[in-house]
Amino acid sequence: MPDTPPPTLTEMPAVAGGGLLDRRLFLKRGMVFGVAALTAETGMADALDRPVWMSRPGQPLSNYGQPSPHEKDVIRWISANAQAPGNGISWTPLHKLAGTITPSGLHFERHHNGVPQIDPAQHRLLVHGLVRKPIFLDPARLHRYPMRSRVCFVECGGNSNAGWHEEPMQALAGNMHGLVSHSEWTGVPLATVLEEAGVKPEARWIIAEGADAAAINASIPLEKALDDALLALYQNGEPIRPENGYPLRLILPGWEGVTQIKWLRRLEVTDRPTMARNETAKYTELQADGKARQFTFHMDAKSLITHPSYGYRLQEPGLYQISGLAWSGRGKIRKVDVSADGGKTWAEAQLQDPILSCAFTRFQIPWHWSGGAQILQSRATDETGYVQPARSDLIAQRGRHGYFHYNAIVSWAVEPDGSVHHVYA
Amino acid sequence: MPDTPPPTLTEMPAVAGGGLLDRRLFLKRGMVFGVAALTAETGMADALDRPVWMSRPGQPLSNYGQPSPHEKDVIRWISANAQAPGNGISWTPLHKLAGTITPSGLHFERHHNGVPQIDPAQHRLLVHGLVRKPIFLDPARLHRYPMRSRVCFVECGGNSNAGWHEEPMQALAGNMHGLVSHSEWTGVPLATVLEEAGVKPEARWIIAEGADAAAINASIPLEKALDDALLALYQNGEPIRPENGYPLRLILPGWEGVTQIKWLRRLEVTDRPTMARNETAKYTELQADGKARQFTFHMDAKSLITHPSYGYRLQEPGLYQISGLAWSGRGKIRKVDVSADGGKTWAEAQLQDPILSCAFTRFQIPWHWSGGAQILQSRATDETGYVQPARSDLIAQRGRHGYFHYNAIVSWAVEPDGSVHHVYA
Repeated sequence: MPDTPPPTLTEMPAVAGGGLLDRRLFLKRGMVFGVAALTAETGMADALDRPVWMSRPGQPLSNYGQPSPHEKDVIRWISANAQAPGNGISWTPLHKLAGTITPSGLHFERHHNGVPQIDPAQHRLLVHGLVRKPIFLDPARLHRYPMRSRVCFVECGGNSNAGWHEEPMQALAGNMHGLVSHSEWTGVPLATVLEEAGVKPEARWIIAEGADAAAINASIPLEKALDDALLALYQNGEPIRPENGYPLRLILPGWEGVTQIKWLRRLEVTDRPTMARNETAKYTELQADGKARQFTFHMDAKSLITHPSYGYRLQEPGLYQISGLAWSGRGKIRKVDVSADGGKTWAEAQLQDPILSCAFTRFQIPWHWSGGAQILQSRATDETGYVQPARSDLIAQRGRHGYFHYNAIVSWAVEPDGSVHHVYA
Repeated sequence: MPDTPPPTLTEMPAVAGGGLLDRRLFLKRGMVFGVAALTAETGMADALDRPVWMSRPGQPLSNYGQPSPHEKDVIRWISANAQAPGNGISWTPLHKLAGTITPSGLHFERHHNGVPQIDPAQHRLLVHGLVRKPIFLDPARLHRYPMRSRVCFVECGGNSNAGWHEEPMQALAGNMHGLVSHSEWTGVPLATVLEEAGVKPEARWIIAEGADAAAINASIPLEKALDDALLALYQNGEPIRPENGYPLRLILPGWEGVTQIKWLRRLEVTDRPTMARNETAKYTELQADGKARQFTFHMDAKSLITHPSYGYRLQEPGLYQISGLAWSGRGKIRKVDVSADGGKTWAEAQLQDPILSCAFTRFQIPWHWSGGAQILQSRATDETGYVQPARSDLIAQRGRHGYFHYNAIVSWAVEPDGSVHHVYA
């Protein structure tokens, strides 16, 4: 390497207002970010000092590891219904995570009557209805079928629904948008089992039912069942966790979570939907024209800046990275634009590869914060060309009775004191 | 769908000896696998019966989930040195996992003086030596640099070394080959921090040191440090687990684990290697010609059938899937061949996408077991054209003094009673 000082960030032109810098900056060589203001030149003796944990033996090996005790706030936040034990939700702390995988212990939960403790030796899947041969499978036998893996998100149709409120809710990003998580799911393609049962020509739908005490069920169009539906046995490499459907869960990549039945025990092939509670009284919504939407399966493209976000406090002006997640239930993310001036100008963020269909895509762009008040936003575009809407556009399109499928652009206001809060902009 | 019986597996021709079937079978439509021998036709009332866990409320929501109590054997097996507390290893149970991600709680461990319990507020990384400006970084400041994610394996150079024994060790696949695990690592490219420090022209190596009581260190060629080395803060989305280096670990994709220093506290830029214990007394090996190998950083291509493997018992003749993992420290896996007749004939397995560089690739091929004695093997080829060697070829090339970097083909013998054991073939 040449022994001459490399260029510094202040020599780089901004690519959009508010201090957004070129996303390719971090791929360049010979570029100094100037973040490490602490230099060791004057305190090398201190810097070489050994910390106390180098002077004593550490903890022993363990059969199953756990997070550091110093990360006690990297947990699911629980909002449960005290009047109905077992009915509630817990949220993935998106504001505390990086990369794309959600550790299984932090995958969001939505239960209606608690988490059943299922003995897999007693669990069966029944496939019946409009089939030539009803079949009855235990998990051990299911293991003999070909399996495939799919890295994809699962998102609750009700995620982010505080966005419909008149006033912007002040909450950590994960506590408002964390009903979405991202795992590697592995299991048997549902199509394989359906072909074994022999679907009759008049079949159009499948009614999936879980083995929890609420017997949650959902109607799935046969077309999706024969496309990429998975009878998942594994999540992130190990058997699915109890709260995510142990020992067997239906995975429907890109569709709303309520259809992806946990603790799956029964698939009834029919010629019509069953009109379950969660596809009539819930997970439908009144539109501006007085008609209700129903069977809105796909989760549309969405993005969220996770760093910085509500609850962060920037310590000083200087270089930061704006980082977040984008996903679409209709395919791959094509691009994510970021604004640091409330939407007046936009710059394209760097996307982390591999970019997969119906999967979390991490985006990032370097940002020089000058110390003033600014509004940060991100806007996802998926491979179908669909662009994540502004909140005002979503309301114009869907009216004010919305509750589900809120996917508008999220705005974080950075104040001169470095604090970050939620605004509508 | 037409209301006529689909073809059955018995009509499919084998693609190699011992009952190997076409890998593309599982992608075909209208193919019956014939696994679900249990039909519900005669017992629909029983099949519709609700299990006991549907009659009572389940468990409440939780802040951080754990595996099912029915999966108590999906754990790391510990082999520790009773004479030296904190010195030992624990193994990833590869024979119990599916897909590719290793849950962080099951990532293998190799410690020399236990797991330090580090307070991240007190942890610092010092970068010094042949640099223009020594720097001293805390994890909070490191978070302001651009990050990237890399899905890659970490493998101990001593993994599978029981393969050098005269007699084949009878052990579960994970307990002999499970010093390899696979995660999404997220952190700051080391190149970025080195450029900030300003590497001097005479620099050639970097000495990395950990903050454990053994102060484990390793010499890294500067070229690798500037290529794809990562200062990792996150593993599978959350802060790195203590046993894997919390709060900061060096990741060197494709290289032996001993170089990927955990609890990273110091990087000294030098003009020569430090000749640490783990690159002289250990992790070197005497060859047949009397010379020792040193600095054998790359982990060569390798594969392992995980299902079925030692300890499994096939219940009856019929259709099964042969499934396993392949990986290479020199790039992507190009193909995996499988033999069911001890290497006489081979057929290509299906590879699960995405296929990434220095990453686990899951392979699978359908197999009709006729009930006889057979020997199952897998053989990986990576994108450089390197082919995983037979055991006899590895010994011919490396001699009998080997201890590290054992990557020969693994052979599992299936007996007529369905039991599986380890053989040299």
